[in-house]
Formats: sequence, structure tokens, C-alpha cells
Amino acid sequence: MKKITLLDASTLLLSNDNFHILTHRYPDGDTLGCAFALCYALRSIGKKANVIINGNLPSKFTYLAEKYEKQDFECCYVVSVDVAAPSLLGDLQSEYEDKIDLCLDHHGSNSMVAKNIFVDATCAAACEIIHVLIKAMKIKITPDIANCIYTGISTDTGCFCYTNTTAQTHRIAAELIECGCDFNKINRINFETKTRAKIKMERMVYDTMEFYCSGKCAIIYTTLAMQKSLDAGDDEMEGLASIPRQIEGVKMGITMREKEDGTFKVSVRTNDGINASDFCARFGGGGHIAASGCSIKGDLKTVKYMLIKAAEEVL
Amino acid sequence: MKKITLLDASTLLLSNDNFHILTHRYPDGDTLGCAFALCYALRSIGKKANVIINGNLPSKFTYLAEKYEKQDFECCYVVSVDVAAPSLLGDLQSEYEDKIDLCLDHHGSNSMVAKNIFVDATCAAACEIIHVLIKAMKIKITPDIANCIYTGISTDTGCFCYTNTTAQTHRIAAELIECGCDFNKINRINFETKTRAKIKMERMVYDTMEFYCSGKCAIIYTTLAMQKSLDAGDDEMEGLASIPRQIEGVKMGITMREKEDGTFKVSVRTNDGINASDFCARFGGGGHIAASGCSIKGDLKTVKYMLIKAAEEVL
Repeated sequence: MKKITLLDASTLLLSNDNFHILTHRYPDGDTLGCAFALCYALRSIGKKANVIINGNLPSKFTYLAEKYEKQDFECCYVVSVDVAAPSLLGDLQSEYEDKIDLCLDHHGSNSMVAKNIFVDATCAAACEIIHVLIKAMKIKITPDIANCIYTGISTDTGCFCYTNTTAQTHRIAAELIECGCDFNKINRINFETKTRAKIKMERMVYDTMEFYCSGKCAIIYTTLAMQKSLDAGDDEMEGLASIPRQIEGVKMGITMREKEDGTFKVSVRTNDGINASDFCARFGGGGHIAASGCSIKGDLKTVKYMLIKAAEEVL
Repeated sequence: MKKITLLDASTLLLSNDNFHILTHRYPDGDTLGCAFALCYALRSIGKKANVIINGNLPSKFTYLAEKYEKQDFECCYVVSVDVAAPSLLGDLQSEYEDKIDLCLDHHGSNSMVAKNIFVDATCAAACEIIHVLIKAMKIKITPDIANCIYTGISTDTGCFCYTNTTAQTHRIAAELIECGCDFNKINRINFETKTRAKIKMERMVYDTMEFYCSGKCAIIYTTLAMQKSLDAGDDEMEGLASIPRQIEGVKMGITMREKEDGTFKVSVRTNDGINASDFCARFGGGGHIAASGCSIKGDLKTVKYMLIKAAEEVL
């Protein structure tokens, strides 16, 4: 296990061939963007490379793989991208865990085991690392590669909104636009498109919204019955937690989601420095200052009452 | 009337004093961002300058004026920012129309009358011009100035999503972050905050949604009665037109809004190159390829039928 520089990583990639590029389970825009960008880049200089998608490719990301066909070769070099811990390899863990030659990541907490590791936690997205790496290898960034890198950067920063966005993030975006990336299409797919089921779920959730603490706390919930009535999957549930905090005057937005095991999964989002992590710690959870979570056992009424009582003490 | 360079503009500003900086009517993030950025910059080198806000400062933009106090002086030099035509001066037109010394704008269609004019239509926001100008004057960009410039850039590009975004837009954003702008707060205010009335209006509008042309056309409407029942103003109506196009599979989103004069104001938003401008031209309207509008006289049922018929011919 060796911590290396990005230049070392570029040398390693240039001097090897027949790559398997591993993504993390429940693949998102960043891990997929990294993998396809690196794959296209390596193929463009005559090397063989495949992306090992971890589970299914979410339908909204099919545009990343438009130019992708699986190649036939025996794997000689394994690279993981945006994978922070062995367990995040999911179904790939047993096959690849002890065979990773190069780990590229931007999570400060990275706990992967690999021959060579490069982690840069100042990068908003792992795709920022891939961008610098491809340039270090002196490989031309085609529009397809640019689309992949932009996807990781845009999705991991909430389109340049989250506090992880840096000057470097924007400078890379500038270069990607010059390389011909279709940022308008990518952002429309990732931020502007909703399924009909998602819209129905949002409407149902709005109907549950209640305000407390003079409007400073908003609380919404979903029940198993609601989810079942809409035949809604995880895709439709995604993003609901951001709804209550969006309302003018709300400092703490709480989302309760009923789970099969008799608990409610609680997501807390705050504004103006209210500590969501401390709040969730009261219930055995935790997270970041502005975004935390916990699980509470009980029925809807009881759990809601507990949360409102706690919110009243904080706000 | 003289077309000048940005360097000329910087010389003019440095050699004059006692500025009135004019914004356009219904002021938005770009015109206000320009005006306050330029005002703070000129004041920082000992000059006197006031922003002439055109109408009321929208409450969400009060953060731009947090450090602003009106100064007392006799105006010697008038600058207009982001004002594309004399009529857009609104109530200021009669007083200032023939007294503008310097016009700074990014609208290719600019038709202002001014002693000196600088227009750069390659800029996504007029704030990009102000950024380069302040640097040309060698004035330090403080966090307050950076917040103003970022506001114009972010609001005029839909947070770097619209096709007007360029590599320069991102490079300026990078510099503004390095100058200490609070982009997270600015984007939260401009893109993530909704009033309760707005949320109620959105829910009501979702209830009107119908799909045609195998789901490729979605249509929503608001009536005067709906607007009245919510006591909703223009702020709440803003952004509704973007709703129907957001739905997966929709290529044409149509929003109908009943007006006092017995017409419906129709907004058409399209994806995938469907020509909204041609569509609206059938009803005497027009606009851009992806976003156009028209007005149609008639009752809800009749107007909706006309629009659906036309959509079926196009899609």
C-alpha cells in the first residue's frame, strides 16, 4: 500500500494495459463519470479498458455509456474510482477487494486497501482528479470525455451550489465547456427532469407538511402505505428531504420516512448554522451540521411528537 | 453616441465622479448586481455613487444592499447597467433618457441612447462586464463586490445551466470564490427558497396537469379565481412555466395563465429542438426556440383545445 502522486498515477496507467475500472455500489454521477471518462481516455491511446458498473446503470446516466461497448480481454490492472471503503464495492467486494492496483478518490475518510492510492479531499468530485490525471497523461479531452467529467462535477456539487465547490471546480468546468461538453443537456437530465411518479409523491408529501416553532420548523412524512399506493421506488423518494428546508423562514426541515422494520428514517436539513448533527445525536444519529439523520422506532404520531418537542428546545 | 472599449469605459469612470447608476425596471439579479458592485467599487476609491433602484428592491435581493447607504451629492455622471432599451428605464425614462453618459450592457439588441456605449453580447450576464471593468480599474474585489457580481452571473445563467454560460462565466465565478463570495447563500436564496404561497400555487397547478400526444405534451393552467383564492402575486406565478417541461418524456410544456382582459397568456417550453417560437407564431406570438409565448383570447376550454390541436400537429 503506497500513497502516490497524481503524476505517479499517470505513469502507472500509461505503463499498464487491460484495465478493469470499478465504480461504487448504487453508482452515482461522480463514480460513473470517473469510470467512463478514464475508460474512454485509455481506449483513445490504444489501451483496452472496461467499466465494471456496480449494479444497474441508472437510466438517467445511459448517455454516459452511449459510445461504450464492452471489450474482450483478460484483466491485468484494476482501478477503483470514487470508492471510499471496501464495503462500498458491494457485490464486487469478494472478487476485487484484494486485487486493486490503483485507488483514485476524493473522500478524506478513504479506507480502501490497494497497491497504490491517491486521495485528494480538496476536490469537490473525484472527476476533478480524473480531469487532472487525463491532462497529465497528455490525452485529448474529447466531448464524450468532457461530458463524463462534467457529470461528476455537476452532480457532486449540486450544480456548483454546495459548499464543496471551489475555484478549481469552476476552472475545470470552463475547460470542459471549451472541450465541447453539453452542459445544458447534462444539467437538464440531472436537475430538471422528474418522473410522473416523483411528482405524485411530492404532491402527496406536501399534503403532510406542518409548521412548528413560529414557522421555523417544517416537518413532512411518507408512510409505507403512501409509497405503496404510488408504487414508488427509491428514485421517487430521493430528494424529498430537501423540500421542507426550501420554504421561506424555515431553519430546520425534518423528513420522516416509514420503513418496513417499524422505524422512521429521519432526515434533518438546517439553515443558518442550526446544528442538525447535534439534533440527530439526541436520537442516536449524526452527520453534518446542515444535513444529518437518525432512525427512531415508533408510530407516526409518537415519533413526530418526539421530533417536534426536540425542535422546540433547539429553535 | 460613441462605441467604446472596456478600457475606455474604465478611464471614463476613473476620471469622473458623483455617479448615478441606473438599473432597469422590475430589477433582477443581474442589473442590481451590476449596480451595487459598481457603486461599491467606485466608493472604495473615494468617489461618490448612488444606485438608482428602478421601483422596489425585491426582498430576496436585500442582501446586495446590506452595506449600502444613499449618499448626498449632485449627480455629474450617469451610468446605465443591463438596460437594453430606453423604455426599460420605466419611471426613470423621462428624467434620465437623454442624460446617460455611459451605457454598459450585454444585450445584442441594445437600443439605448448614450454618450458612450459598451455592449458585449458574448457575456452571459452584464455582471461579467462589470467584473472585467472593475479589474481594469485596478480596484480590489471585496467579498461584498464579489457577492453582487456572482448574483448577476448565477441568476442570469440559472446557476450555470443555461446555454448562455461560457468558459469565461466559470472562470469569473472561480475568481469570485477566491475573493470570498458566499455562493452557497446566494444560490440558496435565489434557487432554493420558496414562499408558502408559492408552494400552494404549485400544488394547485399540478392538479390541473394533463398529458397529450402520448405524454410528449403536458399542459397546466392558472385561472384568476385560483390566483385570487391564494392571494398570489407575480412572485408566486414566476417559474410556473418551467414545470410541465420538467416531466420525463415531455417535449413540449404549455402553461396557460388567465389574465384580467379575457385572454390567456401562454408560455411554451420545449426540449429536443422542438420549435416553440414557430408554435407560438401560429397564435401571433414568438420568442426563442426553447422558450416562447403568445396571448390567446377565449375561455379556458376553447384556448386549451386550440393549443392541444396545434401540439398534436407538431409532435
